[in-house]
Amino acid sequence: MDPINQRIGDMLARIRATRPLIHHITNLVVMNDTANVTLHVGGLPVMAHDAEEVAEMVAHAGALVLNVGTLSPDWIESMLIAGRRANELQTPVVLDPVGAGATQLRTRTDLELLRSLQIAVVRGNGGEIGALSGEGGEVKGVESVAGPEDPLMAARRLAQTYRTVVALTGARDIITDGARVLMVNNGHIWLTTLTGTGCMATTMVAAFAAVERDYLLAAAGALAMFGLAAELAAEKAHGPASFKVALFDQIYNLTPEQVANGARVVEGG
Amino acid sequence: MDPINQRIGDMLARIRATRPLIHHITNLVVMNDTANVTLHVGGLPVMAHDAEEVAEMVAHAGALVLNVGTLSPDWIESMLIAGRRANELQTPVVLDPVGAGATQLRTRTDLELLRSLQIAVVRGNGGEIGALSGEGGEVKGVESVAGPEDPLMAARRLAQTYRTVVALTGARDIITDGARVLMVNNGHIWLTTLTGTGCMATTMVAAFAAVERDYLLAAAGALAMFGLAAELAAEKAHGPASFKVALFDQIYNLTPEQVANGARVVEGG
Amino acid sequence: MDPINQRIGDMLARIRATRPLIHHITNLVVMNDTANVTLHVGGLPVMAHDAEEVAEMVAHAGALVLNVGTLSPDWIESMLIAGRRANELQTPVVLDPVGAGATQLRTRTDLELLRSLQIAVVRGNGGEIGALSGEGGEVKGVESVAGPEDPLMAARRLAQTYRTVVALTGARDIITDGARVLMVNNGHIWLTTLTGTGCMATTMVAAFAAVERDYLLAAAGALAMFGLAAELAAEKAHGPASFKVALFDQIYNLTPEQVANGARVVEGG
Repeated sequence: MDPINQRIGDMLARIRATRPLIHHITNLVVMNDTANVTLHVGGLPVMAHDAEEVAEMVAHAGALVLNVGTLSPDWIESMLIAGRRANELQTPVVLDPVGAGATQLRTRTDLELLRSLQIAVVRGNGGEIGALSGEGGEVKGVESVAGPEDPLMAARRLAQTYRTVVALTGARDIITDGARVLMVNNGHIWLTTLTGTGCMATTMVAAFAAVERDYLLAAAGALAMFGLAAELAAEKAHGPASFKVALFDQIYNLTPEQVANGARVVEGG
Repeated sequence: MDPINQRIGDMLARIRATRPLIHHITNLVVMNDTANVTLHVGGLPVMAHDAEEVAEMVAHAGALVLNVGTLSPDWIESMLIAGRRANELQTPVVLDPVGAGATQLRTRTDLELLRSLQIAVVRGNGGEIGALSGEGGEVKGVESVAGPEDPLMAARRLAQTYRTVVALTGARDIITDGARVLMVNNGHIWLTTLTGTGCMATTMVAAFAAVERDYLLAAAGALAMFGLAAELAAEKAHGPASFKVALFDQIYNLTPEQVANGARVVEGG
Repeated sequence: MDPINQRIGDMLARIRATRPLIHHITNLVVMNDTANVTLHVGGLPVMAHDAEEVAEMVAHAGALVLNVGTLSPDWIESMLIAGRRANELQTPVVLDPVGAGATQLRTRTDLELLRSLQIAVVRGNGGEIGALSGEGGEVKGVESVAGPEDPLMAARRLAQTYRTVVALTGARDIITDGARVLMVNNGHIWLTTLTGTGCMATTMVAAFAAVERDYLLAAAGALAMFGLAAELAAEKAHGPASFKVALFDQIYNLTPEQVANGARVVEGG
């Protein structure tokens, strides 16, 4: 077996064995879904956003998710407090820049988080990564209607600027730390028919990052597993809602062996 | 084919072709469901409520939903900001007066929105429309436990007072602009067993209003499609949750032709 | 038939006949699920949290749920306002101390609610009840990773200190008012794979408490019904998401007779 695949399977086994707490400060639309995805992949979810408790909560977490999907100023403050504490403890912080490029508030907040914190992984769609990297792309609401002309270059530039890993998800996922590049070919078109699948992918990345310090590989493993679950779920779907039920069931049911066998990750750029 | 039915099918085809952004400032209970309904009918959802970004966001939207299901003062302010900007741009604003009549805060806020903004469509249940029109009816929490004695008169009066279209949903949906009246006979009793079906109907209305300036017809088309999806979903349901899965699948799967054939809309009052 | 079982069936029949309004001030993760559970068991849900309307809303309610799963200071204030009004009206208040023990904010808020209000039932997991009773236990995020050494003693002590009923849910549910003890043996391991099942159980308790002044029995009946629904749902589940669909369908479909026959409640400690 490809050593990358073996390592991806091992990561999932570690998540299931250690049940890392994934602290989310996330948007109001997907909270239930991302809490369930956390549980199904093998972690423990907690959603906590008050400035008074986030530093205490994140101290017990294996990873922190910052997701700007429904921003307000007090939540931004909490994101910074939790993020700083996570950085002190070397707990990975995963950023989901939902709707970057759609409004100034979102773009500015994402850039502030990237500058103020050490972000382990940024997981976004083509439009969002394009907007943050300055390489173009267009976001309509929270949907990427046009990616940057050269998605890999956009991802690379963003990764280099902020010394982070960028995971740009789409028909093919691109993951890069600015030097190394991994591509994930798992996935299914049904994922585009459902709200919050980007946020779910981000949660998966956080769960993998909680057990693997090579964040490039962690992000690739998470996206491969998520895409594989989608492929299997699509076989049972009659529409987006039955797809979602099957997707969540699959995330729970997939074994480390199945993920190691089914992941389609390739190196290079 | 009846020309109304033909036009309803055409509206759905336009939604799918143009993918209008539907900006929601809505309640915390239904956000995930209404985002999914927006996607499934063919639009793009965005939930954004911060005063700093709503004017910018709504400028890209095809329609704005204001839903007062879980109010707080800062969100009311954002509703007014977004609504004024939408009015300037002649972007239709759809109001869902969840729980009007249940508390003074809700009733007062709905009336303030109706007075301050040009609302394209108000979509509510009998109790809510009764409360806002002053024609009686009773709301318990967010449920209509008693409609006004004459629902059509209540809808007509509310429509006339605020120069808007009123869509009063129930066993039979009544839509009026104060003069013209359309009745929609699609629907299914299972819709009453599930939370947020009124809010989902409102989102459908917004998607149709985004592509059709005759808001009376847009509302009727949206409610006919929603009711038709419910009828088909009921055949596969074993209870409210499996009904919900089937309902969402159906909204996605219904074609313009099926909707044109299945809509049961009649004129007159 | 055992008189306890008969009374449990009767409670469900009363919920369905009277449709009590269950006012929730609850967390952002589970709002949709607990609203649906309220409807499916037979009540009417409302989520309202603004300080301006909670006293007015709770005046029409059959029970009030206070759930601290995603706290912020203004919501705590609203919980106190709504709770005091509920106490004046002798409307039962059910507390779900989500994540008690995980952060000082949560523990302190729960204790403040317990001291300031007359709480009818506290429904929590072993770790939460342990933290509030001072009998030990450990909470990671919102999950009980270790219960108190003697769960019954912890539940009893908490019940006695605040003159309330404590329902400690787990593989076997323990319900006590400090003197009497009931154990519920219904339930299924799938409940641990899904987010918000504790919150759903709390909502069930509130619906039963709305129609039965013997809160010990009300809590036991609610948990028996919830566990029974889980047992039946498990037969149709292929994973946690299909389990959830089946669980909600079952809560809706279960008749008072089925619940009376299937409840496994035993007295004693």
